Amino acid sequence: MVVRTLNVNEHILSANDMLAENLRRKFADSKVFVMNLMSSPGAGKTSLILKIIESMSPKFKIGVIEGDIASDVDSQKIQQANTDVVQINTKGACHLDANMILSAADTLGLEGKGLLIIENVGNLVCPAEFNLGENIKVMILSIPEGHDKPLKYPLMFTESNALILNKIDLLPYTDFNMDELRRTVLAMNPTLQIFPVSAKTGEGIQEFSGWLENRILGR
Amino acid sequence: MVVRTLNVNEHILSANDMLAENLRRKFADSKVFVMNLMSSPGAGKTSLILKIIESMSPKFKIGVIEGDIASDVDSQKIQQANTDVVQINTKGACHLDANMILSAADTLGLEGKGLLIIENVGNLVCPAEFNLGENIKVMILSIPEGHDKPLKYPLMFTESNALILNKIDLLPYTDFNMDELRRTVLAMNPTLQIFPVSAKTGEGIQEFSGWLENRILGR
Repeated sequence: MVVRTLNVNEHILSANDMLAENLRRKFADSKVFVMNLMSSPGAGKTSLILKIIESMSPKFKIGVIEGDIASDVDSQKIQQANTDVVQINTKGACHLDANMILSAADTLGLEGKGLLIIENVGNLVCPAEFNLGENIKVMILSIPEGHDKPLKYPLMFTESNALILNKIDLLPYTDFNMDELRRTVLAMNPTLQIFPVSAKTGEGIQEFSGWLENRILGR
Repeated sequence: MVVRTLNVNEHILSANDMLAENLRRKFADSKVFVMNLMSSPGAGKTSLILKIIESMSPKFKIGVIEGDIASDVDSQKIQQANTDVVQINTKGACHLDANMILSAADTLGLEGKGLLIIENVGNLVCPAEFNLGENIKVMILSIPEGHDKPLKYPLMFTESNALILNKIDLLPYTDFNMDELRRTVLAMNPTLQIFPVSAKTGEGIQEFSGWLENRILGR
């Protein structure tokens, strides 16, 4: 049964990769830089996006695609920050795919958006397998989730360009081992950029925004 | 594309349900009570299992099946607690299915195990869709994940018999709204049993173990 499931996945994944390549060209033609943001449920994706909007909207026009199984609570928060947003409800699917982004990007209108942030479905497994035509993949691990997660969900840690360690304000109340985390993830992915932040207090947001700005400007 | 994916899922799900019914009879014949434990990554499944072993192993013989994408760090912890454990590595799949449990249960040896705890893959989406022949589904939501998760991942909250709110020791440092959480989940699932606990300090573990013991003894 496991083997059959893998075959189905491979078929779906290669179809997705073809669509993702189309999307990548579309984004490049429109001069839109795309960040695919992934994490577990509740690690702080929406809170981080709100901080990025606050920090970067004076310089870049930003659009957001919100992926959720159900509900539009996240896209309402983005709208309140005066930012264009499209909500995708996957109705059960545990990740976004390139086809969903294609429709959403058309609805959003890409021209003039310097930065498109895609908030993927909260999940450390499936989103890592599906390319969305993005320029960079960024994942969030929140401190209360623990430093052993890279061993248990390796693909997302190896696929990502940057790792945001969110909720560092909770560090004193957990047994999170920052050195062990760094050692483990850098052994898996030596070029991974690591940013300790608190989307609650704002600590570390400037460092991440600065890195993102350099990536957008191709520096 | 969304519709095609759903059809594939339906086929896989009905095959899984047939296998799960076989498992359910097998467990009943062996007088084994089965708990399927689900949550996001890092919500505290393994820590809770260790506390349950501590609290209930004097009365019940306990076996554990550990489901992970990769690694055996969790099953090592269970072994250190002198408890029989089988590790399943799903190699990418975001949930356990009945077929995997069938093989694992044979390896574990069921006879005389009063309680079998299945630790599902860390994920709030896919595990809710796959029956494993269990008697009860229990989910953990940890306080730092936030009180808005039921709206965003509804299936797991409606499918579960009990909801464990773990890491209540972190309540003072978050904006988690307990009343709002209760209101939301009970509107979705009025018979859901809710247990605030801290697997770190042990608070609330006795209340949950007492409820579980009553379920095992059919009271």
